[in-house]
Amino acid sequence: MPIVDTLAHYKRRDLGGDVMAGVMVGVVTVPQAIAYAFLAGLPAEAGLYASLVPPLIYALFGSSPMLSVGPVAVVAIMVAEAARTHAVPFTEAYLAVTATISLQTGIALWLLRMSQMGGIVNLLSHPVISGFINAAAIMIILSQLPALTGIPGAEGGPFRQAEHLLADIGSVNPVALTIGIASMAVLGIVRRYGFYAARPFLRRVGRNHAVTRSGPLLVAIIAIVAVTLLHLDRRYGIATVGVIPAGLPKLGLPSFDFALWMDLIPASAMIALVAYVQSFSIATQLAQRKHERVSPNQELIALGAADIGAAFTNGMPIAGSMTRSTGGGRTRLTGVFGLLFVAIILLWGTPLFGALPHAALAAIIIVSVADFIDFDPIYRYWKFYRHDSITHVVALLGVLAFGVERGLLIGMLVAVALLIRRSSRPHIAVVGRVGDSPHFRSERRHQVVTDPHVMVIRIDENLYFANANLVEERLLRLVARNANIHHLVLVCSAINFIDTSGLRMLERLDHALSRRNVDIHLSDVKGPVMDQLVAANFPKRLSGEIFFSADQALRTLTGPEPVGSTDGERSPTAAP
Amino acid sequence: MPIVDTLAHYKRRDLGGDVMAGVMVGVVTVPQAIAYAFLAGLPAEAGLYASLVPPLIYALFGSSPMLSVGPVAVVAIMVAEAARTHAVPFTEAYLAVTATISLQTGIALWLLRMSQMGGIVNLLSHPVISGFINAAAIMIILSQLPALTGIPGAEGGPFRQAEHLLADIGSVNPVALTIGIASMAVLGIVRRYGFYAARPFLRRVGRNHAVTRSGPLLVAIIAIVAVTLLHLDRRYGIATVGVIPAGLPKLGLPSFDFALWMDLIPASAMIALVAYVQSFSIATQLAQRKHERVSPNQELIALGAADIGAAFTNGMPIAGSMTRSTGGGRTRLTGVFGLLFVAIILLWGTPLFGALPHAALAAIIIVSVADFIDFDPIYRYWKFYRHDSITHVVALLGVLAFGVERGLLIGMLVAVALLIRRSSRPHIAVVGRVGDSPHFRSERRHQVVTDPHVMVIRIDENLYFANANLVEERLLRLVARNANIHHLVLVCSAINFIDTSGLRMLERLDHALSRRNVDIHLSDVKGPVMDQLVAANFPKRLSGEIFFSADQALRTLTGPEPVGSTDGERSPTAAP
Repeated sequence: MPIVDTLAHYKRRDLGGDVMAGVMVGVVTVPQAIAYAFLAGLPAEAGLYASLVPPLIYALFGSSPMLSVGPVAVVAIMVAEAARTHAVPFTEAYLAVTATISLQTGIALWLLRMSQMGGIVNLLSHPVISGFINAAAIMIILSQLPALTGIPGAEGGPFRQAEHLLADIGSVNPVALTIGIASMAVLGIVRRYGFYAARPFLRRVGRNHAVTRSGPLLVAIIAIVAVTLLHLDRRYGIATVGVIPAGLPKLGLPSFDFALWMDLIPASAMIALVAYVQSFSIATQLAQRKHERVSPNQELIALGAADIGAAFTNGMPIAGSMTRSTGGGRTRLTGVFGLLFVAIILLWGTPLFGALPHAALAAIIIVSVADFIDFDPIYRYWKFYRHDSITHVVALLGVLAFGVERGLLIGMLVAVALLIRRSSRPHIAVVGRVGDSPHFRSERRHQVVTDPHVMVIRIDENLYFANANLVEERLLRLVARNANIHHLVLVCSAINFIDTSGLRMLERLDHALSRRNVDIHLSDVKGPVMDQLVAANFPKRLSGEIFFSADQALRTLTGPEPVGSTDGERSPTAAP
Repeated sequence: MPIVDTLAHYKRRDLGGDVMAGVMVGVVTVPQAIAYAFLAGLPAEAGLYASLVPPLIYALFGSSPMLSVGPVAVVAIMVAEAARTHAVPFTEAYLAVTATISLQTGIALWLLRMSQMGGIVNLLSHPVISGFINAAAIMIILSQLPALTGIPGAEGGPFRQAEHLLADIGSVNPVALTIGIASMAVLGIVRRYGFYAARPFLRRVGRNHAVTRSGPLLVAIIAIVAVTLLHLDRRYGIATVGVIPAGLPKLGLPSFDFALWMDLIPASAMIALVAYVQSFSIATQLAQRKHERVSPNQELIALGAADIGAAFTNGMPIAGSMTRSTGGGRTRLTGVFGLLFVAIILLWGTPLFGALPHAALAAIIIVSVADFIDFDPIYRYWKFYRHDSITHVVALLGVLAFGVERGLLIGMLVAVALLIRRSSRPHIAVVGRVGDSPHFRSERRHQVVTDPHVMVIRIDENLYFANANLVEERLLRLVARNANIHHLVLVCSAINFIDTSGLRMLERLDHALSRRNVDIHLSDVKGPVMDQLVAANFPKRLSGEIFFSADQALRTLTGPEPVGSTDGERSPTAAP
């Protein structure tokens, strides 16, 4: 438990900074927690509860002292998508579904840890995540437009919702829209100029920009005051948060329904993946600033425990939040003071938030997630990393069209398919000697010397089932073009493994070429690859030899080895 | 049309050999065609029809003059599996289903050609195919045991069938079993000693072993004579082929049922893949013996046309057959003479086959497919190509447990998953100079010289999403171990591509290490990779340099460049 270490070495002079930073985290957290709870289809208190117990558990187990966990937008929209097909939002049944999702998400994270399968998150490659984040941001913004404008929302996917909003544009509530737009304006102004305004007070908090993130609380206060004084709720039908029950969360067992449990597994697994990837990436970024390291395994345990804690306290699935994590502070206790602030709000402050209008919450969410939207990688990488651009677009459209779960899966599959497609058409270069040097480079890109009887070819890919046939065909064609060739040297410096399909291909090739009196030789074979070839008894069956380097191969094949060549070269077959 | 070329250059002296070889092909074909038709759940004539029109079409379009196409065991069992869920075997409705499968298979092959997706067959890697063939052989043998033993067959998968056979072992028909075992004995003897017995007659056919494959016809003749003379069918309830309608196939349009059509697509696609892989691999083997080449695209067109021909003539899906293809012969016309023999049988010989007992056909099938069974690759490769052994076993068990379609799919997915798993844990070697040479090799496997301030590391894998995080972590750990390091040279000779995840990883790594005063340098960057890095403006942002070779990097970083070093080296950044 890393917290023990923190407490044992705690320095009193850190206390002031930690308390102030903790309060700032709390200030940022409360309105966000309420907003994301609504986004997930849950009552406001679920968001606050999830900002209390899970961060406490994370503070005990997590390997990152800086990471603040709790409700986040992307996870909230995934929860809403998964739960909506099983229950009506804001009902008891819906709460039971989300509790099950929390529990399963926690278990999934623990299973990832136990099965050593944490590596699977790597399949959520950067383009897939970027595409997903873009799509999620669009979906979240669309889902908030009804609250922002007062137009009644519609069920269905994002395209359906957009269509519905446009069709019902006449039923816009001007007061709601005014609250929404004014809130967004305040958020923008605080974010941009808040630092200067608050500069005098900043000394105690340290040189951080936390104050620029206090916008949501300011917006909430202004909106609450406006609604209360002008009776906007009764006069203009402005929807507000309503009664938030006071008090700390009660322990509750999530109900168990076998059919529901089975149905929710894929969604929970996906939420676990996304939550882990987001949390770990934020934790790593924060750790790098302080030359620290984050342990993936410890994070899986801590996040899993936090989610299970959320399940038993009527919370919602959580993840690391960037906006709340960078609130400064010096130690792990920052987070603890942050949740003390949330606890105080829950105990005595909930009546204050009853009049908070949904339009202001929608504005907070929209401004927050609008930051995530970034289409730049799509066209920035189009020319030279086209596969990544395609993957990004596929994940983006997949999530919008088919939902988060299937969209992410499609993105992952496309990334893998493109990967295999790429390696199934490898780059094969005819190489020659660069000047008098022992280096061999592509004859297309460099001025090189080649031998009329010895063709030296570098295969820039592992030899395996997806490309063995194509490589065979291209090598045969290259050799057929030149009748003077007696030796074909395959430079294996870029070959990291050869599977049995590749092995059989080499044997077939050797067989076919020996009929034309062309011997095949290998050079620059890596140790692990060599071990495998020797185990398959390949070197003895090969018509040619296996050379240490292309240089050695060419010197041996084109003439007598120069006397006194003692530069330490030897055939790797003789290596231990 | 390759046949035009054959006819234009036909030499009269080839005629005799072609006719004799053609007759031998026909002799081998007829009993096999009847047997495989039954295996597919079709009447005998469907097999004969499929040995007539499709080979004719293939002779017109195919790029391999030697390949004999027609009904084959593996395709027959796949057809049976797919069709059985939609109709009862040996009925009109079943014929309609198999005709649809033939048509779809042909269209699928054409689509593969048109979409340039022929490469997808490479995903059916050698281990997947071997596992599938083993499973298919087991399934086929099990499916034939009822006919061989007279025990009534059971529905269901191979495990069900085996259980059923054991339970009903008492109801074995001793006469059927005698016919079956005697047939197998004859087949074995002819195969082993037929060559010597027939040697006097072999001169005209050429030096081929076709006669050793005439066993099936001999078995058929003996069995027919025995059944007819001893009235085994009426006295001992021996099932026979029954009436085969005389005459050539009639043209018929496959009926079109939209729901059925949609249901059959996956099965047909898989049959197309398997048929193509099998045919192409046999054609390639035959072509290599004569220094010829097979065109994958032409094969897709020819096989597709042959399958569509089968669909319109009440045949069954076809593929290349190894046993029938090696019947000698000199030109493309061998196949044409072979199908003339089949046509003669159809016109006047069908009554001869009415008394052919199923037990003999079962023996022919079992002996034929038993040859395919080969578990050797599983343990031969276990130690050094474990992934391939695992894939083989998974495909084998997958096909047995879940059927051909899903089993093959599982095998393909496992192969891809293992591939990604392997490349997600790349081999990373700390390398050093071999003696005074410019070559760098792993310090674990070779005696090398390293520098205390410059760490040279070779990453033996492409840098991409599946391994970027792990590589980052391992590089950080390697550098952290040694506080004296000022330069880290990454030798990129084995890196064939870097995607944006890899690029971001390198940037993060550079960022993290520059805080420890370690510069990152690259060397041996391949041309295509360099192009991408330049496009992403990476070289300018990198703390270190990009060197032509590790040798150059070390010489530059450890001291002043020796005067007069004019061995043609230059930085690839300066390359055109």
